[in-house]
Amino acid sequence: MPDFPKSEYQTRLAKAQQAMEIAGFDALFFTTEAEFRYFTGFRTLFWQSPTRPWFLIVPKSGDPIAVIPSIGAELMRQTWIADIRLWSAPNPADEGISLLIEALRDARRIGTPMGEESTLRMPMSDFERLRHNLNAEFADATTLIRDLRMVKSSAEIALLQSICAIGSQAFARAGELFHQGQPLDAAFRAFKITLLQEGADDVPYLVGGAGPGGYGDVISPPSNTPLARGDVLMLDTGATLSGYFCDFDRNFAIGQADAAAQSAYSALWQATEAGLLAARAGATCGDLFQAMASQLPNASEDVGRFGHGLGMQLTEWPSITATDQTVLRPGMVMTLEPSVEISPGRMMVHEENLVITEGAPVLLSNRAAPELPVI
Amino acid sequence: MPDFPKSEYQTRLAKAQQAMEIAGFDALFFTTEAEFRYFTGFRTLFWQSPTRPWFLIVPKSGDPIAVIPSIGAELMRQTWIADIRLWSAPNPADEGISLLIEALRDARRIGTPMGEESTLRMPMSDFERLRHNLNAEFADATTLIRDLRMVKSSAEIALLQSICAIGSQAFARAGELFHQGQPLDAAFRAFKITLLQEGADDVPYLVGGAGPGGYGDVISPPSNTPLARGDVLMLDTGATLSGYFCDFDRNFAIGQADAAAQSAYSALWQATEAGLLAARAGATCGDLFQAMASQLPNASEDVGRFGHGLGMQLTEWPSITATDQTVLRPGMVMTLEPSVEISPGRMMVHEENLVITEGAPVLLSNRAAPELPVI
Repeated sequence: MPDFPKSEYQTRLAKAQQAMEIAGFDALFFTTEAEFRYFTGFRTLFWQSPTRPWFLIVPKSGDPIAVIPSIGAELMRQTWIADIRLWSAPNPADEGISLLIEALRDARRIGTPMGEESTLRMPMSDFERLRHNLNAEFADATTLIRDLRMVKSSAEIALLQSICAIGSQAFARAGELFHQGQPLDAAFRAFKITLLQEGADDVPYLVGGAGPGGYGDVISPPSNTPLARGDVLMLDTGATLSGYFCDFDRNFAIGQADAAAQSAYSALWQATEAGLLAARAGATCGDLFQAMASQLPNASEDVGRFGHGLGMQLTEWPSITATDQTVLRPGMVMTLEPSVEISPGRMMVHEENLVITEGAPVLLSNRAAPELPVI
Repeated sequence: MPDFPKSEYQTRLAKAQQAMEIAGFDALFFTTEAEFRYFTGFRTLFWQSPTRPWFLIVPKSGDPIAVIPSIGAELMRQTWIADIRLWSAPNPADEGISLLIEALRDARRIGTPMGEESTLRMPMSDFERLRHNLNAEFADATTLIRDLRMVKSSAEIALLQSICAIGSQAFARAGELFHQGQPLDAAFRAFKITLLQEGADDVPYLVGGAGPGGYGDVISPPSNTPLARGDVLMLDTGATLSGYFCDFDRNFAIGQADAAAQSAYSALWQATEAGLLAARAGATCGDLFQAMASQLPNASEDVGRFGHGLGMQLTEWPSITATDQTVLRPGMVMTLEPSVEISPGRMMVHEENLVITEGAPVLLSNRAAPELPVI
C-alpha cells in the first residue's frame, strides 16, 4: 500500500474533475470498492463484511474526502488521502450520514453511479435520508466513471500483465494437476493452490465444469464427480494481484477428445483469431462481436456476450454484444470469450485477455493451443 | 448443489411467509447473494461479476420466483426452484425489468431490505423504473430477513462447525508455517494454501498484521516486510465451506513476546472467557458487550464492536455493541472479538466462534491458548 505512486491517483482525479466540469457535477459520491480504490488506493478484503458502509466524495476542485468507519482509519492514512472523516461504526442511529450531510452541504448537483453494472452499497433508507437532508439533486455518473475506468494506465496494464502471466503459468501445469479419476472439486482445489504458488495474491473466482464432450454451464462450483475419460474439463479463473484480475479459461480433454468437442474447440479458437484481428482502436464492441459471431453458427445464447472489460473487477464495462456501440480505445483491457452450444445442455467457452493499442492488440494471456489439448 | 435437502429451503420459506403475513407483505424482493442462496440454494462465485443483476421474489403464498440472466439457468435448474424466468443479459435496455413488472404486478406492498447492512445490487435507475411501473409500495424488510437468517438450522451449524474445524487445523500448523525473516505476504500465501489443503473451498478473507509487540490495524493486506523477533503476528481468516464462513484470528509472537503484548493477550483471553460465560440465550448483545468490556479498560474504539453474527457472510447481524438490544437465541452463531489498544497505533484483537444454545455456548473454533504463543 499504496499500489501506485501518488501521481497515478492525481491523474485519475484530474481527469474526473475535467469530466465533472463538462457534466456539471459539484461532487461525485461513491459507496463501492472499485471506485474507492480507483481514487484513493485503499485496498482491503474487508469489503467482504457488509456491516459498515464506506463513502468517498470527489469534489469539483480539491482532493477527495473519505468518510469512513474508524476501523479503516489506519489503512486510509497510508494512502494519499488527507481529508479522512471518521465515525465509530456500527452505529445504526447515524451510520456516517451526519458527516455526509456536512461534507456535501454546498453541493447542488451530485453525480453517483445509478446505471449499468452499478450497486448502491449502503442502506437505501440511509440514502433517502441523505437525499432528504441535502439541498442537492443526485444524477447518474455511470458514464463518467465508466469512461475513466475503462482505459487503463500503463501501471495498471503492467499489473494486469503480471496476473495474466501467473494464470498462464498455472494453466501450463495442467498436465501434472488434473487426471482421470480425480474428483472435480479436488482439481479445483489443486488449481487454486497452484495459482497462489505461482504468485497470485488471491483467487476470488474459479468456476468451470467437466462432462462428456462438453459441460452444462460456465458458472458452477465444482461437484465431487471424478473426471472420466472423454470429459472436457474447463476452468475459468479470476485470480488477483494487488487487486487486479486476470479472467480467462482453458479447456482440456481427459484421455481423449470426441470429434464434436474437437470441432467446437477449433471453431472457438478461430473465432478468437477473428476477434484478435478485429480488436482495433476505432472499432466498436458490436464490430468485435460480429467478427467472432460470423465464425460461430452455433453460438450459445446463454452467456449473452462474447467478452467484456477487465481490471479491478472480474468483469467491467463494456460488453461485447451485437448492440454495444462502445468504441475501442488504446489502453482498454478486454476479454474475448466466445461460446458455442455443442448440443442441448452441452457447451464450450474459450477466453483470452488482451489490451487494445494503437496497432494490433497485445495478448496478456498466453494464447491457447489451436487444438483441444488432451491430458 | 444443492447444499441442503429441499426441506431446509421449504422450512425457510414457510417461516418467511409467516413473518410476511404479520408484516403485511405481498412479496419479498431480493437482489443480493446471501438472500438468493438462503431461499434457493443457488451458490456460485459468479456474483464477483457486477454486470448482471439477479432478482428473487418470495410471494406471500407459493414458491419463490427467480428472475435471472440466462447464464444462470442451468445452475438454477439444479435447485428446488421451479419458476425460473430468464432474459439474455447483458441487455441495458431492459435488464430484467419487464419480467419483474409482470411478476410483481399483483403485489401492493413489497418488502425489500433497506436497513442495516443492506445493499441494492441493481442499478438505482432500474429500481426507480420498477417502482414507477408498479402499483405497489416498497417497505423495509430488513428486520424480517435478519430475524430469519440470524438463527441457524442444525444443517447450517454443521457446516459452520466444519469450516471452523478447518480453520483451527490450519492455525495449529502455525509453528511450521511462520518464521522470523519471512515476508508477511509469504506468510499469508502459505496460510491460504494450508487452509485449502485442510479442506476449505475458498479463502475470501485473510487480513492481519505484524509489528513489534502489536500491530497497527486489523483489515490490511500484507506488506512484504519480513517478520522480526518480537513481532506479534496476527492472521484473521474468513475461509468457506459450501459458502459458509469461519471468522476468527490467532496471535503469535515471533521468537519472543514483550510484557505489554503478553499482558494485552491475557486480558483479551480473559475478556473472551467472560464473554463465553455471558453468551446465554435471553441475554442481549449489550449484556455480552459489557461482560467483555468490564475486563478491558483499554478497549480499542476503532473496531466499533466486540463481535458479530456469522454464517453465509463473513459478518452478519447482530453487532456486539453497548447499545445493541438483540436478544440471543439458541442457534445464533456469533464471533466474540474484543480488541485493545496497547499504545497509540499498536493494538491487539482476539476472536472465537461459537453457537448459542439452551445452555452454555458451544465453541466452533478450538479455544486459543491462554498465553500468547511464541513460535
